[in-house]
Amino acid sequence: MSKGEATRQAVLAEATEIASRLGLGGLTIGTLAARMEMSKSGLFAHFRSKEALHLQVLDHARESFTAEVIRPALRAPRGEARIRALFENWYASIQVPGACLFVSASTEFDDQPGPIRENLVAAQRDLADVIAQIFRTGIAEGHFDSAADPERFAHDLHSVMLGAFHAERLLHDPRAETWTRQAFEALLDAARPKSD
Amino acid sequence: MSKGEATRQAVLAEATEIASRLGLGGLTIGTLAARMEMSKSGLFAHFRSKEALHLQVLDHARESFTAEVIRPALRAPRGEARIRALFENWYASIQVPGACLFVSASTEFDDQPGPIRENLVAAQRDLADVIAQIFRTGIAEGHFDSAADPERFAHDLHSVMLGAFHAERLLHDPRAETWTRQAFEALLDAARPKSD
Repeated sequence: MSKGEATRQAVLAEATEIASRLGLGGLTIGTLAARMEMSKSGLFAHFRSKEALHLQVLDHARESFTAEVIRPALRAPRGEARIRALFENWYASIQVPGACLFVSASTEFDDQPGPIRENLVAAQRDLADVIAQIFRTGIAEGHFDSAADPERFAHDLHSVMLGAFHAERLLHDPRAETWTRQAFEALLDAARPKSD
Repeated sequence: MSKGEATRQAVLAEATEIASRLGLGGLTIGTLAARMEMSKSGLFAHFRSKEALHLQVLDHARESFTAEVIRPALRAPRGEARIRALFENWYASIQVPGACLFVSASTEFDDQPGPIRENLVAAQRDLADVIAQIFRTGIAEGHFDSAADPERFAHDLHSVMLGAFHAERLLHDPRAETWTRQAFEALLDAARPKSD
């Protein structure tokens, strides 16, 4: 890795941390320069614009999510075990400070058309596709009903995780983990093959 | 209503619209003054600080939610009909531009301790209490199982609505309404009295 690239990665990690705490709206090249004790002009050379910085921060966060949540889950056996691994990794990722970047950016930019919104939508569609695809391995393995809708399951699982996020990160509700696990098990139960 | 109070209400409505679109982080006394074509000093006389403005915007949004979602639901018959009325009103409120203020503010401030966060937590706890209380009328009426947990139901319903919000407002997914209604019916089915 070149020195320029190493600097860019260090700045991106810091930028992602700021955006996770304050939202993308709280992340400007000026605030980032102050935090990194770098010149604004030096940061402009790396990122060119606030929007370019935001897009790179989103890509950085997305790569982390893929590395920590999705890729390890894909190493679990196909079907229910893989869905459970995905759930556990995802749930663990919520506990980490700064986990909220996608959730906060999504609600921050849902009414603001443009490249940031498009980046978020693409990332969320890709995630839904990954979940649906894992669910399909569960149908193929006979763990889930062949009539179950993989994309509806992906939506329902996402709802469960948004609820978990809300109860844990905003409300600090000690019952959040129990409720989240119960909701996840209810989704799996509803997806199992019908016995008749 | 005095002229000063009428002005304050008009400014609050505009401020709520801005915050709903850009998040509270995008709402400053300066941007609001520009939009209302008023002087910053005039707005400071009404709101005193950005934080005071944000708190009043949240209270304003909360009163709207109570008036449009909760109060009409409480006029429905106790039990399942009342929960259904709450769901329908809440779901309709998501379709309105600017509906996202609580969702966006919650993810924006979940990592930022202070009066805004406390205001949000109090509002969300009150909402959970209202849902749980309506659910209890359903237990009393025999519509729901006496062993069902009203607070868990409130959490699950909130998860469903967050998922609906995500699928509709960010993804513009045409299947969002079907999935949301199916998830809601699944929650009701799970809550019904066990037949044995």
